[in-house]
Amino acid sequence: MDGMMKVAVMNGIGEMGFEQRPIPSPKNNEVLVKLEYVGICGSDLHYYETGRIGNYIVEPPFVLGHEPGGVVVEVGADVKHLKAGDRVALEPGKTCGHCEFCKTGRYNLCPDVVFFATPPVDGVFQEYVAHEADLCFKLPDNVSTLEGALIEPLAVGFHAAIQGNARAGQTAVVLGAGCIGLVCMMALKAMGVMNVYVVDIMEKRLEKALELGATAVINAGKTDAVKAILELTAGEGCDLAVEAAGTEITTKQAVSMTKKGSNIVLVGYSKSGEMTLPMSLILDKELTIKTVFRYRHIYPMAIEAVAAGKVNLKGIVTNEFSLDEAQKAMDYSVNNKAEIVKAVIKIG
Amino acid sequence: MDGMMKVAVMNGIGEMGFEQRPIPSPKNNEVLVKLEYVGICGSDLHYYETGRIGNYIVEPPFVLGHEPGGVVVEVGADVKHLKAGDRVALEPGKTCGHCEFCKTGRYNLCPDVVFFATPPVDGVFQEYVAHEADLCFKLPDNVSTLEGALIEPLAVGFHAAIQGNARAGQTAVVLGAGCIGLVCMMALKAMGVMNVYVVDIMEKRLEKALELGATAVINAGKTDAVKAILELTAGEGCDLAVEAAGTEITTKQAVSMTKKGSNIVLVGYSKSGEMTLPMSLILDKELTIKTVFRYRHIYPMAIEAVAAGKVNLKGIVTNEFSLDEAQKAMDYSVNNKAEIVKAVIKIG
Amino acid sequence: MDGMMKVAVMNGIGEMGFEQRPIPSPKNNEVLVKLEYVGICGSDLHYYETGRIGNYIVEPPFVLGHEPGGVVVEVGADVKHLKAGDRVALEPGKTCGHCEFCKTGRYNLCPDVVFFATPPVDGVFQEYVAHEADLCFKLPDNVSTLEGALIEPLAVGFHAAIQGNARAGQTAVVLGAGCIGLVCMMALKAMGVMNVYVVDIMEKRLEKALELGATAVINAGKTDAVKAILELTAGEGCDLAVEAAGTEITTKQAVSMTKKGSNIVLVGYSKSGEMTLPMSLILDKELTIKTVFRYRHIYPMAIEAVAAGKVNLKGIVTNEFSLDEAQKAMDYSVNNKAEIVKAVIKIG
Amino acid sequence: MDGMMKVAVMNGIGEMGFEQRPIPSPKNNEVLVKLEYVGICGSDLHYYETGRIGNYIVEPPFVLGHEPGGVVVEVGADVKHLKAGDRVALEPGKTCGHCEFCKTGRYNLCPDVVFFATPPVDGVFQEYVAHEADLCFKLPDNVSTLEGALIEPLAVGFHAAIQGNARAGQTAVVLGAGCIGLVCMMALKAMGVMNVYVVDIMEKRLEKALELGATAVINAGKTDAVKAILELTAGEGCDLAVEAAGTEITTKQAVSMTKKGSNIVLVGYSKSGEMTLPMSLILDKELTIKTVFRYRHIYPMAIEAVAAGKVNLKGIVTNEFSLDEAQKAMDYSVNNKAEIVKAVIKIG
Repeated sequence: MDGMMKVAVMNGIGEMGFEQRPIPSPKNNEVLVKLEYVGICGSDLHYYETGRIGNYIVEPPFVLGHEPGGVVVEVGADVKHLKAGDRVALEPGKTCGHCEFCKTGRYNLCPDVVFFATPPVDGVFQEYVAHEADLCFKLPDNVSTLEGALIEPLAVGFHAAIQGNARAGQTAVVLGAGCIGLVCMMALKAMGVMNVYVVDIMEKRLEKALELGATAVINAGKTDAVKAILELTAGEGCDLAVEAAGTEITTKQAVSMTKKGSNIVLVGYSKSGEMTLPMSLILDKELTIKTVFRYRHIYPMAIEAVAAGKVNLKGIVTNEFSLDEAQKAMDYSVNNKAEIVKAVIKIG
Repeated sequence: MDGMMKVAVMNGIGEMGFEQRPIPSPKNNEVLVKLEYVGICGSDLHYYETGRIGNYIVEPPFVLGHEPGGVVVEVGADVKHLKAGDRVALEPGKTCGHCEFCKTGRYNLCPDVVFFATPPVDGVFQEYVAHEADLCFKLPDNVSTLEGALIEPLAVGFHAAIQGNARAGQTAVVLGAGCIGLVCMMALKAMGVMNVYVVDIMEKRLEKALELGATAVINAGKTDAVKAILELTAGEGCDLAVEAAGTEITTKQAVSMTKKGSNIVLVGYSKSGEMTLPMSLILDKELTIKTVFRYRHIYPMAIEAVAAGKVNLKGIVTNEFSLDEAQKAMDYSVNNKAEIVKAVIKIG
Repeated sequence: MDGMMKVAVMNGIGEMGFEQRPIPSPKNNEVLVKLEYVGICGSDLHYYETGRIGNYIVEPPFVLGHEPGGVVVEVGADVKHLKAGDRVALEPGKTCGHCEFCKTGRYNLCPDVVFFATPPVDGVFQEYVAHEADLCFKLPDNVSTLEGALIEPLAVGFHAAIQGNARAGQTAVVLGAGCIGLVCMMALKAMGVMNVYVVDIMEKRLEKALELGATAVINAGKTDAVKAILELTAGEGCDLAVEAAGTEITTKQAVSMTKKGSNIVLVGYSKSGEMTLPMSLILDKELTIKTVFRYRHIYPMAIEAVAAGKVNLKGIVTNEFSLDEAQKAMDYSVNNKAEIVKAVIKIG
Repeated sequence: MDGMMKVAVMNGIGEMGFEQRPIPSPKNNEVLVKLEYVGICGSDLHYYETGRIGNYIVEPPFVLGHEPGGVVVEVGADVKHLKAGDRVALEPGKTCGHCEFCKTGRYNLCPDVVFFATPPVDGVFQEYVAHEADLCFKLPDNVSTLEGALIEPLAVGFHAAIQGNARAGQTAVVLGAGCIGLVCMMALKAMGVMNVYVVDIMEKRLEKALELGATAVINAGKTDAVKAILELTAGEGCDLAVEAAGTEITTKQAVSMTKKGSNIVLVGYSKSGEMTLPMSLILDKELTIKTVFRYRHIYPMAIEAVAAGKVNLKGIVTNEFSLDEAQKAMDYSVNNKAEIVKAVIKIG
């Protein structure tokens, strides 16, 4: 497919612009996808506000965006499972296939991963992308490309649930009701956990959590969350806590509210990088702390869960912008973090 | 509680009768339960028809029935978590607590278990029973004692699902749509498995499977079940097969229809005890064969699943008899195996 | 067995004394054991120095000691697997057998455990003890009662190795070469781990580690331990780290020296109870943090490992005292922590 | 490297010959290996005797041999971890890296594997081979290329041990003391299993098993093997059985001699492909049957185990032939199966 495409680029901190770039040609093992929706992730906002995350430093012009959904318009010579017209969700990380991590099935830890919107690799706030066909997952008829875009954050939620050995019969608590907390909650429910309580300090987010299926919610700004969970569990504590707020206080609450021998899954990144934690209590309770770095092997099951109506993925979207509104989309998202659960950019 | 109670006893093969026995007194760690429903299990029928299962031989008068639900009427001195009036499901096996199996949490394998209706231990086709309070699980308001009685077979289904590592994202097949096959199917769904296909040769059972939530059903009398599953899974095979028919033919089908590296869970007992199986194919596919002997740690989660509406447990009941009709209940069940999914005896 | 026995009691902080108490009579499920050796554990010293550990507060007179080995001299009526004359290792914790933790095989988390030398339960710095026969494990001919006493700390090492999924093919690091670090190292080796490096800052302890089988040792006072491990593993990091020093600095080192996706097992208690840890790095590496609270199901395997010559348990003993020297034993142990790896009290 | 090399080919059933073929050139990601030893496997003999295994049919001329060890003589442009002169063990199967099995770390199940000496893919009874560098594992100084060749069968043993969850504290039994039974035994021991009993009917093999480290051996031709194991385990049965004989009788013995809840690992292929097994007993004991198809992720740990002296791999070799003796090697191996534990071909 010849021609040029519009690309929204970050030209500097807090500064979006546009470029025309050639529409890429798919290699033999790739497909060309016309993008329809790309989610805006917290990491996009962080790069936009500060120009870096840890050692990953933006060199402008840089393309943000790693949560894409779209339609296949061209397929490479070796591609068999997709054809033009197929709507797909794109898993954003290409891995080497040869390292110890790839060989043992933990490809999310591949040191040579090429991941959309992780400097220096460009993301996909643009009209087209050529991507490995193996990383493009066909959507069933009842799953939209908007939902396709949101499979990416949902994959984090499912990976968290799997890391925590989530299972029917447990009582789980999710701390933090932002986008990631909500997808964790929905993933836990889809995995069979019947009681999933959600804790946050913002009433609006808690309302969203209830709307999307939380068993009950606790406003930790008004109630002692640990005490509340102990009461809800007849003093026993929960079987699984998923920390999705990235704060020391919620991590400590997770330690206090879980039953002895339980799993705590850490999903949220702390701003400072460090936390002071009650390690002796963690040992006394023989807790296990599991962590989440992206996800692996989740796209098919996440798509299936959405198709089956187990996860109300559309329900997390609170704001939609056009590609032309890229600057507005980023600024609005940065300035209204408390209001926004999930913003997406509609392409074309 | 003084007085006598009515007990239905098996006086010989195919011969039921009644006795009056003293209402038992609960020990300090026991509760006295007024029974309301007791399910009739295939093993009850087998004892009734043949007088034995393997080395377990009925010595009349013998009391059948090990799937009880009822109401607590008296509590022992040391019992704290139950009180008179509580409706309960009774887990039928008392275990020693000291053997290697009990100590390691696999109490279903305890060699010294005392299990209702397993000779020489009497069952509970009777009005009252005194039972270890730890084995009596309180039912929530929206779960009836009829459902409480049926927690026992449902527990087998959940144990099968757990043994098979059932999980969201899998496609599972249940072979056999009798009572146990149906509870396996419902347990798989409650554990998050989105696609659960059920195979049987009786149309009526398959209708029941669909009614209770099977994704689709296959009549193996009319269609090649293996071929059908391969078609439904794009040639890949299913991720998990649960054999609940106890026949060589269905076990072989399970081997053929599962994907390489998968689990097959055997729940059904074969009549002859032996099967001729394609072991080289099992090795070529590196399959794992898991088995099910009763269950462990399931009652709370099974009750919760019923309360949450995840399992339509009432839906499996096709026939109800009174205690006075014990002879009729047994004879009818023996003579109409194909028609009956689950019969229960209503006590009092 | 009638008569009185000598008991060493803690009469106050830093103050040992003696009492005569009646030799206990074993209950039906108990045996009476004439003690031969009791190890002195760090927790004994902590009670001795401060009068408490967390909420466990010593009420004098209190008997310390929970690492006993001895000879059966009398057996209760129901005991079948032991007879007078059998030499045994005694597992110090009696558990309820009924709680969720006991039922699921995690009896070390039983909230109702009765554990030697954990206030208000007396320990065994004394001549005799009556103990549950199920908790007394017969020693083979080639395992002494001194080694029997030391099975208790070794059990912690094996539990740590199991919690960490230790396995042949891994490279493991143990941080801290005190008694617990050393038993962890030996347990890792017995579980098949071929490369076990030990880190400490005291040369004497590192020499002991080498003597007992460490693959190599690193003096973190002289060398950068993280760098050293990275060099030893071709830059990849170790597969498993066991933290047995209980300090923030070693815990941070464990985080830095492990490969992505690895397990860190925390065994050491921090004095302050809190640590400030690099949580973002832990998430980036998708590490799992496992913890150790005592042990479960370990005594038979630990005894077997000693009998098979896989673990040089005697080798950890550096100091031996008689029961009459109880005061000296405690004082010397408190004042020479750096010198002592393991002290034991020989009884009678 | 220009020039021709000698290749031993199977020209028909029971008929070996030689060809001159060009020495291959390594691709960018390959190395050229000068072979020093290639083991003769049972599957080589089976192809030689019958021309096929299942659907794999030999089209002459065909090169047998898939257990190679040698020296790197040339490296492809992209190869970094190897250099000319490195001695290596070659893992014989190239996998696709893209299928569900490869992605999830179970590459041994890859349907598109290209495996030495599995028709139509030629093996390595020849002087040189170009092979993926990632599949060539450098041998430490104290591991010979003869041992390097034998890493392949040892890998099967370790995979069997891992499939069976072998662990310190267990008592294991290996049924069948041919080459595969012996490597299973040695792998079990290297994984920490302290008691490994070996059962066979040929005294010579049992002597070899003892020589290589079996705890004890049982001649099932003279003794009831099940009874013997029950006696050795105080009536409890073993914790793990590895079936390496491929017969119905040994598989049944495995079922009878294992403790309830145990794992049985099937490694041996049955000649007929089918076995009649006591399935009800398998269910009653809630056994798990695991199977072995080749191996995955084993080479590094197996090499390390040999280097550490945990496995006496040289000890299994009973016969050595030169490449020129290929016909004799195959004929002798076919005609003396009972005598030979392991034959190897020395190249050059």
